[in-house]
Amino acid sequence: MPWTSANRIYAKPSNSSAGEAVVGPAKARPAPTAAADSGGRFELCDHGYGKSSVKLLHVHRDGDYHTIREFEVSTELKLTSESAYVVGDNKEVVATDSQKNTVYLLAKKHGVKTPEEFGAVVVNHFLYMYKQIVEAKCRVLEYPWERLQAGTPHNHAFVFSPSATRWSEVSQKRHEAVKVKSGLSGLRVLKTTQSAFVDFVQDEYTTLADAAERIFSTVVEAEWTYDSMREADFDNAWLTVKDAILDKFAGPPDTGIYSPSVQHTLYLAEKTVLEKVAEITWIKMTMPNKHYLNIDVSKFPANVTKGDPRHHIYQPIDKPAGLIYAQLRRRPKSHL
Amino acid sequence: MPWTSANRIYAKPSNSSAGEAVVGPAKARPAPTAAADSGGRFELCDHGYGKSSVKLLHVHRDGDYHTIREFEVSTELKLTSESAYVVGDNKEVVATDSQKNTVYLLAKKHGVKTPEEFGAVVVNHFLYMYKQIVEAKCRVLEYPWERLQAGTPHNHAFVFSPSATRWSEVSQKRHEAVKVKSGLSGLRVLKTTQSAFVDFVQDEYTTLADAAERIFSTVVEAEWTYDSMREADFDNAWLTVKDAILDKFAGPPDTGIYSPSVQHTLYLAEKTVLEKVAEITWIKMTMPNKHYLNIDVSKFPANVTKGDPRHHIYQPIDKPAGLIYAQLRRRPKSHL
Amino acid sequence: MPWTSANRIYAKPSNSSAGEAVVGPAKARPAPTAAADSGGRFELCDHGYGKSSVKLLHVHRDGDYHTIREFEVSTELKLTSESAYVVGDNKEVVATDSQKNTVYLLAKKHGVKTPEEFGAVVVNHFLYMYKQIVEAKCRVLEYPWERLQAGTPHNHAFVFSPSATRWSEVSQKRHEAVKVKSGLSGLRVLKTTQSAFVDFVQDEYTTLADAAERIFSTVVEAEWTYDSMREADFDNAWLTVKDAILDKFAGPPDTGIYSPSVQHTLYLAEKTVLEKVAEITWIKMTMPNKHYLNIDVSKFPANVTKGDPRHHIYQPIDKPAGLIYAQLRRRPKSHL
Amino acid sequence: MPWTSANRIYAKPSNSSAGEAVVGPAKARPAPTAAADSGGRFELCDHGYGKSSVKLLHVHRDGDYHTIREFEVSTELKLTSESAYVVGDNKEVVATDSQKNTVYLLAKKHGVKTPEEFGAVVVNHFLYMYKQIVEAKCRVLEYPWERLQAGTPHNHAFVFSPSATRWSEVSQKRHEAVKVKSGLSGLRVLKTTQSAFVDFVQDEYTTLADAAERIFSTVVEAEWTYDSMREADFDNAWLTVKDAILDKFAGPPDTGIYSPSVQHTLYLAEKTVLEKVAEITWIKMTMPNKHYLNIDVSKFPANVTKGDPRHHIYQPIDKPAGLIYAQLRRRPKSHL
Repeated sequence: MPWTSANRIYAKPSNSSAGEAVVGPAKARPAPTAAADSGGRFELCDHGYGKSSVKLLHVHRDGDYHTIREFEVSTELKLTSESAYVVGDNKEVVATDSQKNTVYLLAKKHGVKTPEEFGAVVVNHFLYMYKQIVEAKCRVLEYPWERLQAGTPHNHAFVFSPSATRWSEVSQKRHEAVKVKSGLSGLRVLKTTQSAFVDFVQDEYTTLADAAERIFSTVVEAEWTYDSMREADFDNAWLTVKDAILDKFAGPPDTGIYSPSVQHTLYLAEKTVLEKVAEITWIKMTMPNKHYLNIDVSKFPANVTKGDPRHHIYQPIDKPAGLIYAQLRRRPKSHL
Repeated sequence: MPWTSANRIYAKPSNSSAGEAVVGPAKARPAPTAAADSGGRFELCDHGYGKSSVKLLHVHRDGDYHTIREFEVSTELKLTSESAYVVGDNKEVVATDSQKNTVYLLAKKHGVKTPEEFGAVVVNHFLYMYKQIVEAKCRVLEYPWERLQAGTPHNHAFVFSPSATRWSEVSQKRHEAVKVKSGLSGLRVLKTTQSAFVDFVQDEYTTLADAAERIFSTVVEAEWTYDSMREADFDNAWLTVKDAILDKFAGPPDTGIYSPSVQHTLYLAEKTVLEKVAEITWIKMTMPNKHYLNIDVSKFPANVTKGDPRHHIYQPIDKPAGLIYAQLRRRPKSHL
Repeated sequence: MPWTSANRIYAKPSNSSAGEAVVGPAKARPAPTAAADSGGRFELCDHGYGKSSVKLLHVHRDGDYHTIREFEVSTELKLTSESAYVVGDNKEVVATDSQKNTVYLLAKKHGVKTPEEFGAVVVNHFLYMYKQIVEAKCRVLEYPWERLQAGTPHNHAFVFSPSATRWSEVSQKRHEAVKVKSGLSGLRVLKTTQSAFVDFVQDEYTTLADAAERIFSTVVEAEWTYDSMREADFDNAWLTVKDAILDKFAGPPDTGIYSPSVQHTLYLAEKTVLEKVAEITWIKMTMPNKHYLNIDVSKFPANVTKGDPRHHIYQPIDKPAGLIYAQLRRRPKSHL
Repeated sequence: MPWTSANRIYAKPSNSSAGEAVVGPAKARPAPTAAADSGGRFELCDHGYGKSSVKLLHVHRDGDYHTIREFEVSTELKLTSESAYVVGDNKEVVATDSQKNTVYLLAKKHGVKTPEEFGAVVVNHFLYMYKQIVEAKCRVLEYPWERLQAGTPHNHAFVFSPSATRWSEVSQKRHEAVKVKSGLSGLRVLKTTQSAFVDFVQDEYTTLADAAERIFSTVVEAEWTYDSMREADFDNAWLTVKDAILDKFAGPPDTGIYSPSVQHTLYLAEKTVLEKVAEITWIKMTMPNKHYLNIDVSKFPANVTKGDPRHHIYQPIDKPAGLIYAQLRRRPKSHL
């Protein structure tokens, strides 16, 4: 493994870097592009900078009844000029520390109604304030707090209940509309019947047998986009996505719903979302197949394997896992 | 930092290790102790070995109504003999792989009623089976699955809801009674009022001001022991501990409960547990103080700080955190 | 927070899902598309499935001299047919379990020369074996083992040294060339001088002052693509990228290299890579700015703040962090 | 699983907590003990509070040559009085925020020579400053930075190289000597030969066969105590422990050292430490056995299993792992 050798570090460092080392802050240079700086050989094709993981608790106090939402916000700006990268000229750079200040001050001014709407407030603000910005993005992750319940809801106490996390990414280019992507993460579910996997390819690489009955467990990730900012009810859409997933995974409480494969269950959940939430353009889901294997007792003598037949024991497998995803979208009208 | 130098590795390796290198499996030697092997200079004062993280899903099928509990089990054995350590003689070693097999086979035979009772089955089995074992331990961590609800409970579908994790450690020495310790982990809560911290020491190292009103958030860890295996209702005890913590943290839904310090809230929760669960001997809780700081807007001009006064914005702090714990026990009768 | 209510789960589940529930394995149906199944309203625009986190240790034994490389491999296949998703028909599905078997068998047959070349072996195999596959992908993560050194290199002992992780993603569509992306992850560095951040935008959202001298610490992520599989020396390229990053971050051992911003340092490292490795098409780097703040002692009296002036104490900040990235590519010849 | 029911939360909350709810700051009460407050039924048997995860970078600047050490420090104080717990009286409480300030101010004043010596400075300070403190503790975790090398060592640039982490816990009771425990964590190693596990117990729970040749991989944890603060050379001791582990694990570079079990290798490493470092009282090591299994190809036809015989492929297993530990101490003189 020669590439872990420490000796290659700094091979000929003094010569190769001599011409590039900037001795002090570069103030006076004109603003060149990457292409100019490199004699036309290279060009920046993407860039951006911002602040990640700005943590924020928003408390809304309506008399004695308090409501909280906790977020982790990231911002990102793209400047028209490449000078910050190419020559280290910071004069158009809105410091990431100032971006952090802005997030707090905008939250204080406007509150945080939903992750999506707060993201839009943030990107609008940056484009309005600074003409050197050509695109602004804001990612908002919501922490899954729930109000404590004791018969009646508690006025001001909350418990962390991370059965699924909500997030949103909002972006806007100058002179264009706001784009909104939302997501649900970490929804882990398991069912003990109504799942099979049969009639797949059998060849010399196959050792898995048909399973007419198996444990089905997954940790759902979903993301989707909205046609427009205006018409969307973001809280309701997120809940509807979550419910569609649970509904197509679990089915009716008494009989359940048969799953012939993770693929099909994933597809049904996506179709349900597009049917129920008109403002969603497309939705992508990922459902890793978390395996629970039967315990093989064939290697043991009978006296140690006999047990109560009602007890079924499975071995949960962390790695490897199956990995299934699909993205479903509305068919463009012109295709019909 | 000379201790990160790679050059010190293996200083004089050939000489110093020559006498100790065992060239093949050590079968014929008598079983010495650490003291004997080292000319009486050293002695083993503690040792043990086992299998950690044996994952296990137990499904109980009662017709169409299925119940699941998922566990991660660790076992540990202490042998009378020190030969495995001192001379590498494995003849009394029950392989960790066999310990894993045993966990699955015992689960299949007896089911897993509670973490505590399954732990007792495991340690009893090892002491009964192998006379060379002087002490056996079993740790069981339970994964927080909940049955899905849709008006009525679902027959066979479950969602992972990690608002608090349950665990247990069971141990038994030969000719002694089983000892049971149980725990609750990761219960994260927050309240937006009825918390203060005032009248503490003010000196030249202090910059914190009195706070008559502050956010109080913590992630509770608790552990406790039982007087005896026989009389305990383990599921009920765990729930009662969880309820006591939530009750003393949150208080009545309408008015809450005043907390003058994390210390006092922790103490009240412990006292409530000892009052409510007679079979618990002692309980220890840890409540880190997860800080949520007010945003300091004094450095900004008024035009960017004015906002809707109902919106209160706090900065959650991951590190550092306060760290508070206490252990409360029943006073021995003879002290009264 | 109405969207956390448990009551919305399964709103009207029995009606909405009745028509979709498949009662048994769907064998006889023709293979419809998502569009057909939904009356032309929806279409699958992306899909794939495979096995993630297949762990693999490759030992090459050349007499007494052993070499190891440990990997975590993920595979992904895209089928021509949408039937697995749309109707749950698995007849063209190569099970993820069989994909896992294939990874091990191919590793045994061919060894694992580099992550990139093994990825190519895997995707080639799948496209050759199964005509129903339209695209295959393989992701390979390498664990950072290093050979132990004791004056001379050890023949068969290794230490885990995760100062940077290597990964690669290889993909191939039927009738197209193999595409290779490689990456470096988690290279954490810090320098105590030769870093500044001055002359940035100062306005009413700014509280950060110019810093002519500051700690610079980052955790570098890099990814890049190769023009073609044939000409690349993958091990050498990875090492050259790592060296370029360290060289432009640290500079000559005696004087260092001045950094006017993270942006500029990142750009210099990317330019060096493109200059040194002809077969790399483009490179993208991400350098979060891990802040180390000066301790503000202005609030304390002099008797507790006086200290040895050689001791400089900083407060490392985990969150938030700056977030800087850029992608640099070779300018197409036609643009010159 | 009735204990996950939300309905049990706050059963009878208003009655049971009515008598305990403190309506405002408790200033006027006398300072009772836990026993007094509970009518003599309960007593606090352990308590403490402090600040965890105070992050700290120490830079020593000797002209152009800079040295860094980064730490995460936790402090903990035990007060004589139980009033903070029992009645919420904070008048003797040194705020955790003030403890954090103290850590930074002491680091600035004295620097951080070693984790052990800085820990001693901190606990000494607290006992000297505050007479209400009966015991002080300080835990210091060191981040594994290494100086960059390019032929010559770099003056001011460092790379994070977490092949092993160092930590220390220092504690002192009033009128007693300082106690020092030190540790090494996360040293992950692997060897491809010179490891066996044979002649262990074979019975009806056993499926593991004797292995005369196997992969041996572990992640070493070690902790030890010092006889006295004065005589110890802490940096040298830590390095010697690390070297002893590597030496007894790997053996001479050409031939290696035979390991008949993890237990024996662990014991040899401990014995070497006690032989080489006179000031260490006892040492405890934990060596989980990270398994690497042979791939079973017996289920596949010959045409897919034949391969280059030099390629050996193993499957790394994350969970479960073996779990082996032992503690070795110097035999008290009186026993000889």
